[in-house]
Amino acid sequence: MKIGFIGLGHMGLPMAGNLLKAGHQVCAFDLNADALRAARDAGAQTTRSPREAAMGAPFVITMLPAAPHVRTALTGDDGVLAGLDNGAMVIDSSTIDPASAQALGALVRERGGAFVDAPVSGGTGGAAAGTLTFMVGGSNADFERARSVLASMGKNLVHCGPNGMGQVAKLCNNLILGISMAGVAEAMSLGVALGIDPQVLASIVNTSTGRCWSSDTCNPYPGIIATAPAARGYTGGFGADLMLKDLGLASDAARQAHQPVYLGALAQQLYQALSSRGDGQLDFSAVIRLYSQSATKPAS
Amino acid sequence: MKIGFIGLGHMGLPMAGNLLKAGHQVCAFDLNADALRAARDAGAQTTRSPREAAMGAPFVITMLPAAPHVRTALTGDDGVLAGLDNGAMVIDSSTIDPASAQALGALVRERGGAFVDAPVSGGTGGAAAGTLTFMVGGSNADFERARSVLASMGKNLVHCGPNGMGQVAKLCNNLILGISMAGVAEAMSLGVALGIDPQVLASIVNTSTGRCWSSDTCNPYPGIIATAPAARGYTGGFGADLMLKDLGLASDAARQAHQPVYLGALAQQLYQALSSRGDGQLDFSAVIRLYSQSATKPAS
Amino acid sequence: MKIGFIGLGHMGLPMAGNLLKAGHQVCAFDLNADALRAARDAGAQTTRSPREAAMGAPFVITMLPAAPHVRTALTGDDGVLAGLDNGAMVIDSSTIDPASAQALGALVRERGGAFVDAPVSGGTGGAAAGTLTFMVGGSNADFERARSVLASMGKNLVHCGPNGMGQVAKLCNNLILGISMAGVAEAMSLGVALGIDPQVLASIVNTSTGRCWSSDTCNPYPGIIATAPAARGYTGGFGADLMLKDLGLASDAARQAHQPVYLGALAQQLYQALSSRGDGQLDFSAVIRLYSQSATKPAS
Amino acid sequence: MKIGFIGLGHMGLPMAGNLLKAGHQVCAFDLNADALRAARDAGAQTTRSPREAAMGAPFVITMLPAAPHVRTALTGDDGVLAGLDNGAMVIDSSTIDPASAQALGALVRERGGAFVDAPVSGGTGGAAAGTLTFMVGGSNADFERARSVLASMGKNLVHCGPNGMGQVAKLCNNLILGISMAGVAEAMSLGVALGIDPQVLASIVNTSTGRCWSSDTCNPYPGIIATAPAARGYTGGFGADLMLKDLGLASDAARQAHQPVYLGALAQQLYQALSSRGDGQLDFSAVIRLYSQSATKPAS
Repeated sequence: MKIGFIGLGHMGLPMAGNLLKAGHQVCAFDLNADALRAARDAGAQTTRSPREAAMGAPFVITMLPAAPHVRTALTGDDGVLAGLDNGAMVIDSSTIDPASAQALGALVRERGGAFVDAPVSGGTGGAAAGTLTFMVGGSNADFERARSVLASMGKNLVHCGPNGMGQVAKLCNNLILGISMAGVAEAMSLGVALGIDPQVLASIVNTSTGRCWSSDTCNPYPGIIATAPAARGYTGGFGADLMLKDLGLASDAARQAHQPVYLGALAQQLYQALSSRGDGQLDFSAVIRLYSQSATKPAS
Repeated sequence: MKIGFIGLGHMGLPMAGNLLKAGHQVCAFDLNADALRAARDAGAQTTRSPREAAMGAPFVITMLPAAPHVRTALTGDDGVLAGLDNGAMVIDSSTIDPASAQALGALVRERGGAFVDAPVSGGTGGAAAGTLTFMVGGSNADFERARSVLASMGKNLVHCGPNGMGQVAKLCNNLILGISMAGVAEAMSLGVALGIDPQVLASIVNTSTGRCWSSDTCNPYPGIIATAPAARGYTGGFGADLMLKDLGLASDAARQAHQPVYLGALAQQLYQALSSRGDGQLDFSAVIRLYSQSATKPAS
Repeated sequence: MKIGFIGLGHMGLPMAGNLLKAGHQVCAFDLNADALRAARDAGAQTTRSPREAAMGAPFVITMLPAAPHVRTALTGDDGVLAGLDNGAMVIDSSTIDPASAQALGALVRERGGAFVDAPVSGGTGGAAAGTLTFMVGGSNADFERARSVLASMGKNLVHCGPNGMGQVAKLCNNLILGISMAGVAEAMSLGVALGIDPQVLASIVNTSTGRCWSSDTCNPYPGIIATAPAARGYTGGFGADLMLKDLGLASDAARQAHQPVYLGALAQQLYQALSSRGDGQLDFSAVIRLYSQSATKPAS
Repeated sequence: MKIGFIGLGHMGLPMAGNLLKAGHQVCAFDLNADALRAARDAGAQTTRSPREAAMGAPFVITMLPAAPHVRTALTGDDGVLAGLDNGAMVIDSSTIDPASAQALGALVRERGGAFVDAPVSGGTGGAAAGTLTFMVGGSNADFERARSVLASMGKNLVHCGPNGMGQVAKLCNNLILGISMAGVAEAMSLGVALGIDPQVLASIVNTSTGRCWSSDTCNPYPGIIATAPAARGYTGGFGADLMLKDLGLASDAARQAHQPVYLGALAQQLYQALSSRGDGQLDFSAVIRLYSQSATKPAS
């Protein structure tokens, strides 16, 4: 099947690769020439515009940094909507605000197409391995239809409700994640300052009411979990700057919904502080560096 | 075996009951006459002072509201230390600050006794069923020695390190718990305000990186977890005022250790706000009432 | 002198009125027909587009709700830039983010015009009385040139630096304001709960290191300052929703600048909570209602 | 007149010196031999206990670090109450929690004495110059009676209400102060990051609604106020650790009063973070170091 693919960055390129492996024909576009070349090397057909990538394809996937990029890719003069076949489906896997996802869905439908928002979790590792989770917002029929394509790139396909709800699910999950990680960092640092063995503390928390992914799978204290980013200098996980972006989306959505997010807003400032000291590229569990200097810094 | 027991409140009375069921002789004391009577009805021998309760007993257990009560019960004129047999062990199951636990341990040892701090989790339900978790701070030998007695009252006996570390483990766990519960309340309320089905949102979080006890076992949104306090008007769980007490201990300990607890201090204020509106007796998951008024209040 | 004026709301209409009183010819535009009619009644000439309002005018003033409105008013097909005389000056008195102000300034200069950002403080009262403060971002020459026009509408004209710095000054001032108001609300409520007379407390603070505009001029506790909104049910001041907008601009700018704003982000959530309970139209000092219920609510 | 004086630290010694200059006879006590010697050198009569210092004196002043010290100095075996003349007055100028002040007042009255709490502001500079502000809690008659003595040590004598209200006034003022200083630090740092000249920003804030003592008198940004601690490396002002102590008293009092102090609790954590990086001895305006690294650090 012919699939248009717009956005060939760290996530998009391996995702497109998995579509190729599954036997699809991928018509790729990116503003960056190097990214385009990499896609061509991987077996994709490259195009000169989102419009050209979309022409004749029953599915077009967008994987872009933020809402303005998606809007431009879809509605620009040479955009997807200018080339989209009647009845074709746009799958936006970018992480953007729910209101934009809903507005873009309406635009696509006006043009006779179908739209699902399908942001992912799982990171670049999951993108390469084809084990991403897709959180999908769209009608039941559209979810079923997208499933065949998404299954080539991911393992868990979750239907979250109508358009926009994929984005809502992602930002609400990451709101809890950003808060609980900073909370675990706070408690591990406090416990160690008070004299407890960090391994003992983690094992108690992990079998008690404090247990959470941020403690039992990605504990920020070095040496607790052998496979966690904390064990390798906070490299290779979910970047603090990406968490910062998602908490920004959550607090913006909260502002529009007139909902307070006290802890989320404060957690956002903590990742901001981490970013402003130059650690934004590290895994977000490096937020523990704001609390306990000695144990979590590389020897210099 | 003869066991002294000081403090026969909501927790202490059923704990003493389980010691009696296990065949121990319990010498009980409480300042409250009704509590003493209830202990007598349950089969305990009642006494007129902590000193009298301690005399001739190889173990003395204290289960009291706060550090000053424990200090008075141990060191008062008619206190435990005035009657403690040489070599007998004091087990303090109250939740108090680690520094006080360490200071009391030193006092008991000076008097020729042994001391472990052994705060519990599991609530009044666990106390009645004998399924409490004990977080124990003391030497290896003292932990082994306490085990025989604790096993009559609890299911999980965890050795956390030397004196004080039982308290450290408890307050660090509850610091994470208080933060993550408020975080889940924030995210569930935001998600619902943005239009997602709360059941769908919870199921996504619970299989993703946001998963935590506060979401998968005690979700604060009504109707998500049938056995959670949220399903019964926030009654019968871990009271918000108790969470407030524990967060107060954590922030006090953080102050002494010169460790910031940004999120913990803010979470403490949220439970404070809940308490100040008269909801301090409700389960702490009622903190969601600060975020979403409509779904979580009883119809009036 | 002929002056184009775009945006005739609660602020824009009385500002345009003061230009008329000063003898200027005002060519007004607003999307709302009622607003246009009111401007005509006040003596303005009304137009059918921003373009038409701008034609032949050496100055064009925009006073609009948010950055997208200003962008559309300037760059739309029928926008100001389509009609702007060569060398004419655009004065944007809207409160928007500094980056947008700088981008719009560049666009105007590309088209041969001049641009200053000139957000105001002083509210609708100051707009009517012609006593607004203008915080102006632009070159020295442009500031001098704008002065003649601004002086008809305001009392204090402050040059804050190049384009964008008027907006920076406003959002930084209001960041402090939003924080200090909530801080005063917190302290007054705490003091009263601890038993002190609020009038005594305020008089001490106002002559001590806690003194600030939020305490000595606009104290949120009712009855302290006879002329403050708190004395009249929190009506008629600076609306909480406007403070929320400005704190939103500040935290967005902080995000882009990678600067943490811990207290600002938390204060934003407090005004959000005030807004979500339906009090967003009240003066922002009503934030004290989040702290002390009894004294600050109307009897029901 | 004979005056007992307990506590001869950085504040107490110069205060006692001013009493001597005013012609009083000072009977001084301190646990520290060096402090006692300094008092003797200044002309005081030294004693071997608080009891001895109090004997025969119509006034006894205590100036001690925290509530437990005051309690011991008054109620210990060799304490003030053991030697206090019938009808003599105890003036406690220590900064302690209001509840302890009230409890100590009751104890003194039981013993036939009078008590006022009279915490100070003005720092060591004010103590030396005799220009302290005293915030006094006690009856009208006791305030009048204390006035004669306090006037030798301070310039402003403020009657705040009955016992405890001096402490309430001080902690509420410092709650606002701690919040507004961090708020100004946040806004100045943000403004500079966004490109505004800090001198321009400060002058705008200081004539606008953001004006406050923390901006116009003690601005934390270096170079704005020539006489502020920021101009001399944050030395010689009100130490961050003292602000931390006062915010701790405020949040403890808030806990007891069931009042949330959202911003106060967060500000407390910020000063905690400042202290934990070793800057607790600096003026509290050094909190700006948490926000803007470059401008506020000494070149290394």
